[in-house]
Amino acid sequence: MSEPVTNIQDDTRLKRLQRTLDSGAMKQAGRMLNALRPGEIAHLLEALPLTEREILWGMVDEAQDGEVLVHLTDEVRADLISKMDREELLAATSGLDVDDLADLVQELPQAVTQEIIESLDLQHRSRLEAILSYPEDTAGGLMNPDAVTVRPEVTLDVVMRYMRRLKDQIPEFTDNLIVVNRDGKYLGVLPLITLVTNDPEETVAEVMSLDAKPIPVTWDDGQVANRFEQHDLISAPVINDDGMLIGRITIDDVVDVIREEGEHQFMGQAGLSEDEDMFAPVLISAQRRAVWLWINLITAFLASWVIGMFEATIEKVVALAVLMPIVASMGGIAGSQTLTLTIRGIALGQLSASNTRWLVLKELAVGALNSIIWAAVVAVVAGIWFDSTSIALLIAAAISINLIFAALTGAVLPIALDKVGIDPALAGSVLLTTVTDIVGFLAFLGLAPLFLL
Amino acid sequence: MSEPVTNIQDDTRLKRLQRTLDSGAMKQAGRMLNALRPGEIAHLLEALPLTEREILWGMVDEAQDGEVLVHLTDEVRADLISKMDREELLAATSGLDVDDLADLVQELPQAVTQEIIESLDLQHRSRLEAILSYPEDTAGGLMNPDAVTVRPEVTLDVVMRYMRRLKDQIPEFTDNLIVVNRDGKYLGVLPLITLVTNDPEETVAEVMSLDAKPIPVTWDDGQVANRFEQHDLISAPVINDDGMLIGRITIDDVVDVIREEGEHQFMGQAGLSEDEDMFAPVLISAQRRAVWLWINLITAFLASWVIGMFEATIEKVVALAVLMPIVASMGGIAGSQTLTLTIRGIALGQLSASNTRWLVLKELAVGALNSIIWAAVVAVVAGIWFDSTSIALLIAAAISINLIFAALTGAVLPIALDKVGIDPALAGSVLLTTVTDIVGFLAFLGLAPLFLL
Repeated sequence: MSEPVTNIQDDTRLKRLQRTLDSGAMKQAGRMLNALRPGEIAHLLEALPLTEREILWGMVDEAQDGEVLVHLTDEVRADLISKMDREELLAATSGLDVDDLADLVQELPQAVTQEIIESLDLQHRSRLEAILSYPEDTAGGLMNPDAVTVRPEVTLDVVMRYMRRLKDQIPEFTDNLIVVNRDGKYLGVLPLITLVTNDPEETVAEVMSLDAKPIPVTWDDGQVANRFEQHDLISAPVINDDGMLIGRITIDDVVDVIREEGEHQFMGQAGLSEDEDMFAPVLISAQRRAVWLWINLITAFLASWVIGMFEATIEKVVALAVLMPIVASMGGIAGSQTLTLTIRGIALGQLSASNTRWLVLKELAVGALNSIIWAAVVAVVAGIWFDSTSIALLIAAAISINLIFAALTGAVLPIALDKVGIDPALAGSVLLTTVTDIVGFLAFLGLAPLFLL
Repeated sequence: MSEPVTNIQDDTRLKRLQRTLDSGAMKQAGRMLNALRPGEIAHLLEALPLTEREILWGMVDEAQDGEVLVHLTDEVRADLISKMDREELLAATSGLDVDDLADLVQELPQAVTQEIIESLDLQHRSRLEAILSYPEDTAGGLMNPDAVTVRPEVTLDVVMRYMRRLKDQIPEFTDNLIVVNRDGKYLGVLPLITLVTNDPEETVAEVMSLDAKPIPVTWDDGQVANRFEQHDLISAPVINDDGMLIGRITIDDVVDVIREEGEHQFMGQAGLSEDEDMFAPVLISAQRRAVWLWINLITAFLASWVIGMFEATIEKVVALAVLMPIVASMGGIAGSQTLTLTIRGIALGQLSASNTRWLVLKELAVGALNSIIWAAVVAVVAGIWFDSTSIALLIAAAISINLIFAALTGAVLPIALDKVGIDPALAGSVLLTTVTDIVGFLAFLGLAPLFLL
């Protein structure tokens, strides 16, 4: 038993807003809403059915619109954007950080995007275009080109005076100033803590930290997340192939990556996207779910076709029809356990050529051990139920075969899918159960004549 | 097609270490290992089969042992701890932060824990005991009592001098100093950025930030994570019921919570724990997987028993046995889509009394629409296959019924489980497929006489 995970705080906040809305006190509701952080407003919007969502969205201050959009999941965001006109979009995107702008711009109508890019000054425009040139799921796509940089030869006192001048222009999550040389080459970082705890007369070069390794712009977002977790980072400099500083990644974007990776694995097993809107219109939801149901239908008919080959056998011994789902489902469960473990290992970057063989062998051993135990258990129950030793022996043999196949498939399949560039979190479970269903039915019904007739 | 997620960097690093180990150059391997961060060593250890893991663990510097243990997943950590003697454990835990120590202490042998507590000075001991008094998955369990506090009436210049004196004692992730009054009551925060960008003559009270809401010690860790994400926090003060500052939560621990929540949902669907060690010994793995296989076996026999009630019907029309897995599996897939969406909504704290009814109605509508579409598709295929209108009509009726039941169960079941304190991520999917299997078989075989005989 674990704790219920309901978020009480938001519950009451939603309720209070709801009550205020219901009572028609729109001004009051608007005030309550706009006192929240953009992230909180986004969270509330996602939790609202469509009509109420639209009413609430209309009440959000224009100045907050952009930040709220940035915090929304893709699908809800796309829905709200599609209902905004040109002026609203231009107003919402003005004043956003360049990395946030880059996220949004990709979902805006082409004409609006063009207008936004043209409205930027030269410096911002080239920064935006730089980010847009990197794939979204790489360090380049995650980074923000805004970073406070300092030269190694200046004193901390000078840095402090520089900081006071910058003041409100210092970007969020600035825990380090980045030290670069005259050409913009990355040299190291100057943590704020170091800045405030050292003698103002010392130079940056004397106190700067050299062991903060910069992140290459080509790293994928999973690698970036691992680096942040393993090095306990708040922000990290990003460099290009020549070692030049080109931007900075901050922990808030990394948290999004980690959150999305987890949701992707979880939602992917049911063929859903991590961006799925809980309150998407019925027609759209049904359409989107259809893909997975189609794939499943094909595999289900495949399994049925296998059963169909043994119609004559089933006609003679109907007990086979009664017991065959047990063989298939035990294989499915055992296989999905191995599959899940392997997919996580891949996602964490913990599976490599050197330990894959070990994992497969270990899972095969678990599968073999399981196959003996569960073959015995099922055989005893089925044997007593149908009062038949032959049925007991048959189902024992079929379950043994299926559990060993399940372990092998569960370990090898996701690794193979990953190798050829197919996402195992999406395709793994449906392929696995296809294998365990077919092997299960084939083994059980195919061996039946040997044991029974 | 998505990018393969393999982490190339670690792969080569593992390989290089492996090669160095294989070549017997132990000293060199040790140097390579200890040049890494504790988080990286932990990541490597988790990716190694048991014997190699032990060899590598023996090569880790004693001074790093504690930090590495803190970064490991529970199961790998427990395994390594079980092989350490008293002296090693005492050495490893000395010098750890109090919150990290609190995590470790709960897994150490009672005698060692006692010795560690006694070895602490009075202040550290009372802090450790304070953390241990809160449940692990609450703000109290996550927090670290170490925080740099300042009084509102002092000037920034005084704060700077204070910081220089503290220097190396300033805890990690200090982005804010916490402002408290003489009695220790929380007043606000002084961001480091504010400290370095304002006139040193100003007082803390004049520049401190008041809108950083402190976190109540009783909040559960999911609420804490939501707060960090929605407010873009690096650290947050924790207060007790009287508004007194009692500690501070930092983003590194929140990232762990988010990572574990995602893994919990994903691994939970296969009845696995998020702490499962990929290379656990075969016997232990088999034992741990057994629970889920037992539960599945019982539900599978339940489904078989339902089929068994219709043996006579199947004997007359064997096509029923061939087609019945399709009815069950379409229900299972459709239901698990709804289930997955609902579980995520609960985990994100986005489902409340006010929108639950909406979600259930929407999912029922999707289910109803799906039931019409898929009943028609399956009916056509099955009708042609067995050249029988009766079979087409029968399977259409059964699939309609099962898909509507599946939608209802998928939406209502996790909410109900959560209400009574059972974790829907663990119990949800097995209960759902039990329902869809039984309803599917009952509807298809139970209605058969009406259509066929």
